[in-house]
Amino acid sequence: MNTLTVHLAEKSYPIFLGPVAESGPSLDRFCAGRNVLFAADSNTRAWQRPVLDLIEKSAMHLECFTFPAGEASKTIDTVLRMIEQASRANFGRDALFIAFGGGVCGDMTGFAAAIYMRGIPFIQIPTSLLAMVDSSIGGKTAVDTVFGKNLIGAFHQPLAVYIDTDFLKTLPERQFRNGMAEIIKAGVLGAPELYRMLKQTSMEKLRADRTLLETAVFQACDLKRRIVEQDECETHSSIRVRLNYGHTFGHAVELLSGFSLNHGESVAIGMDMAAQYAFEEGLCSREFLLSQRGLLQRYGFDLNAGNGLSPEEILRAMFHDKKNRHGKIRVILPESVGTVLVQEIPDPKKLEMFLRKYLAEVRS
Amino acid sequence: MNTLTVHLAEKSYPIFLGPVAESGPSLDRFCAGRNVLFAADSNTRAWQRPVLDLIEKSAMHLECFTFPAGEASKTIDTVLRMIEQASRANFGRDALFIAFGGGVCGDMTGFAAAIYMRGIPFIQIPTSLLAMVDSSIGGKTAVDTVFGKNLIGAFHQPLAVYIDTDFLKTLPERQFRNGMAEIIKAGVLGAPELYRMLKQTSMEKLRADRTLLETAVFQACDLKRRIVEQDECETHSSIRVRLNYGHTFGHAVELLSGFSLNHGESVAIGMDMAAQYAFEEGLCSREFLLSQRGLLQRYGFDLNAGNGLSPEEILRAMFHDKKNRHGKIRVILPESVGTVLVQEIPDPKKLEMFLRKYLAEVRS
Repeated sequence: MNTLTVHLAEKSYPIFLGPVAESGPSLDRFCAGRNVLFAADSNTRAWQRPVLDLIEKSAMHLECFTFPAGEASKTIDTVLRMIEQASRANFGRDALFIAFGGGVCGDMTGFAAAIYMRGIPFIQIPTSLLAMVDSSIGGKTAVDTVFGKNLIGAFHQPLAVYIDTDFLKTLPERQFRNGMAEIIKAGVLGAPELYRMLKQTSMEKLRADRTLLETAVFQACDLKRRIVEQDECETHSSIRVRLNYGHTFGHAVELLSGFSLNHGESVAIGMDMAAQYAFEEGLCSREFLLSQRGLLQRYGFDLNAGNGLSPEEILRAMFHDKKNRHGKIRVILPESVGTVLVQEIPDPKKLEMFLRKYLAEVRS
Repeated sequence: MNTLTVHLAEKSYPIFLGPVAESGPSLDRFCAGRNVLFAADSNTRAWQRPVLDLIEKSAMHLECFTFPAGEASKTIDTVLRMIEQASRANFGRDALFIAFGGGVCGDMTGFAAAIYMRGIPFIQIPTSLLAMVDSSIGGKTAVDTVFGKNLIGAFHQPLAVYIDTDFLKTLPERQFRNGMAEIIKAGVLGAPELYRMLKQTSMEKLRADRTLLETAVFQACDLKRRIVEQDECETHSSIRVRLNYGHTFGHAVELLSGFSLNHGESVAIGMDMAAQYAFEEGLCSREFLLSQRGLLQRYGFDLNAGNGLSPEEILRAMFHDKKNRHGKIRVILPESVGTVLVQEIPDPKKLEMFLRKYLAEVRS
């Protein structure tokens, strides 16, 4: 089994990649003699039993908290119910929360752990590809409010992350693709080897070949690890923010689509927009632009799916994004595979003109 | 003006002691060009104007958030309303929250700052003696739930603390005494000079003499600073937990009194209980026990106020305290002025017998 370590001084933690049952002794060890709350969404029932067996073997007491799958559950109310259950069971500061599910589950359970008694440990067991390569690593936890996605949250690093690609066997294709966007993003950001590998394979092959898939997941996680280690709490102006490549445009597209486009589908469009913009600014070559576009399309992303959205409204959403509230829009622009830069766009008019043109063209 | 620095690497911050108006340039500097949310309870209206003037001089935009005074406001709902106001005003990560009020205001505003956009800076301007010497320093933030006081919270250090004893002029005597318990506690814990000074003066003299009062507040803050620096997040088993001297018994007494006894009144009883227990265990001398008892009584604490409470119920409340959820009760016991030790009490029966006897005796 492959293991990565996220080095953050006393907050360092391992990422275990492989069958979670085979890493049983470790999960046992974390749970030994502890009160454990296992939080999972309703979609993961089929996969819960073997993991629960592992936990039950060593935990002092186990509480199961289940909530309806979907972003609508990612609220402070669900977090408060989770905390209520832990408190009723008299859980103390030595208790452990385990998040078993996609990004919603991990973000929310991590946040509950961050604020219960001013912070207790938690473990991430992501079951979606998106959560495996992105949200389960790096300690970002949050819930949504009507005023914004992830508006309330905390940086709270997990005690450990268990990544078992077996769980992906039942993941619908569209959800798998959702995670592929972040893997492709990792390749562009700083993993040229991963980028080349993705060029040579396909989603079908990745889904069918455990070793191939684990290699892709490993490299995406490793890229995220390297960036998080340099800038744990996004306090630097140009390090962790790079992970938002494709997201500044993408979040706005996702929002404006009324979430009919999912995160990965929107980020894929955002990456293409960023590359097109970078190309027009003379920052990247046409070869890079077309290479990335081809790769995104190879994995089934429809880069015309945003066409028809209003450029003005996208711009307004970008300004409202919590990262741009200082009144300037900051985008991550690619120069080549492995190199991106952070740029402030001082002139919204220029961006609006760019968006108008981009959203009118058809890419095939 | 006296300034203390709480040394916590990149989270270090100053405590300014003196008239807040005279430390104006600094408060100006923190607010300069920023969106500022000023949170205050309804009791502090008389003191707000000069501070608001200082903020308005340099802040980019000011939002005022007011809530009813009292512990009943210290809920997640008030925090969510505060966050809603900041979000409606489009506050970003560079915004600043300012807590102006007692411990409820500081704890709650600090928690709102800890979770808004995963953490933004905040400043403490305590207006009660209790908040000045205790809750405004050390980064503990929290709200209450029906399942426990401070059950939800975070460690989030302020950017700065401004302590202006002028605000205490309108503080009712009982509220002033509330803070005195923590000052006396600081003396016993690790400030023998402060302890001796308190022996020689009185509450009336402290209230009347700004220099004397500032000296007492300074020394209590300095003791807290030293302890917090060694153990920021209460992760050690025997450092920051010492600040709970008098609190394990005290919290239970406060709860069982139905909060008719306030925090300081309960902690004073808790300190006397701890000293009596320590004396009976042969840990401290009779001289110390009587010296501390005399000091508490000198400052008007009624050490018989808990008499009549049920020993069984106090014990049950102590077990339910969030710090004792591992099933053992940990108390802080004094050896002499300046020296306390942390001890686990394995036998609840013994403690119940002690409490039964203590609550039946009259101390005069």
